[in-house]
Amino acid sequence: MENKVQRFIERARYDSESLFEILDSSPYCIISFCEKGFPYAIPMNFARLGDHLYIHGHRDSRIIKHLASGNNAAVNITIVGNVVISEKLCNYSIKYRSAVIFGKFEEFVDRPEKLAFFKAMGEKLNPGKIANSILPDEKDLDNVTVLKIKLENFSIKIND
Amino acid sequence: MENKVQRFIERARYDSESLFEILDSSPYCIISFCEKGFPYAIPMNFARLGDHLYIHGHRDSRIIKHLASGNNAAVNITIVGNVVISEKLCNYSIKYRSAVIFGKFEEFVDRPEKLAFFKAMGEKLNPGKIANSILPDEKDLDNVTVLKIKLENFSIKIND
Repeated sequence: MENKVQRFIERARYDSESLFEILDSSPYCIISFCEKGFPYAIPMNFARLGDHLYIHGHRDSRIIKHLASGNNAAVNITIVGNVVISEKLCNYSIKYRSAVIFGKFEEFVDRPEKLAFFKAMGEKLNPGKIANSILPDEKDLDNVTVLKIKLENFSIKIND
Repeated sequence: MENKVQRFIERARYDSESLFEILDSSPYCIISFCEKGFPYAIPMNFARLGDHLYIHGHRDSRIIKHLASGNNAAVNITIVGNVVISEKLCNYSIKYRSAVIFGKFEEFVDRPEKLAFFKAMGEKLNPGKIANSILPDEKDLDNVTVLKIKLENFSIKIND
């Protein structure tokens, strides 16, 4: 597995600060995985807590079952900026910040950690306004599957 | 390989009109592929011409080499809309339109088709303003690798 940026290497970064900034700026990520040799790429909501990225879903959903079984994943978060117009048509480009996280998701059942995930995701989607929301109860928490992946193997490419 | 939407199936669509609308609304896509069993997910610019999606890159780049070699790909295009706030924190959601295209890219060397791709991508990034751009010359066209994938095996999920 080779996870280093190989082209435009001056755009590469590998620090957590840059990673966290990108993750905390996007409401969703693309989860990529392989099944029987075929690639898949599915958008999902997520939240970051410390050095983990969390996703949730129904335990019977295909992607949750696949990822909870210890299969490898790649998680892409891309934020695009302005188009860069060039005199030459073939030199047009787009500003972007993109991160790919590699690794395996793990399931956990700890209710306080699940609750912390829901609060973090709610806060990201509705900043400063979740205080009056109805929090998930124990049944809500037990009924949802939450997976997390450690943010330790990743690459970042920034063209700004 | 199972490419049908399996959850929230009322959100699924499989028609070209919906697909083209999503593709033509996004400046980039996420290309997913498998290499030695590991998934990857890389953002790339693209354009659509008819029923093909086109990408370009340096012939020595890893993803271009991999895709041009006939390996399977999944291409995700996701457009997010408004956050849907709920009284219950665990019921927050986001409006989205997402498409995944499955298949294999193929390389081609035809210069007029490469030029049509550059014009389509330029028009998408700078609508109505490419008339005065310097077009790629024969050397430019020969130096770039352009790949295309047929838009025939895809699924769409829309929550609007």
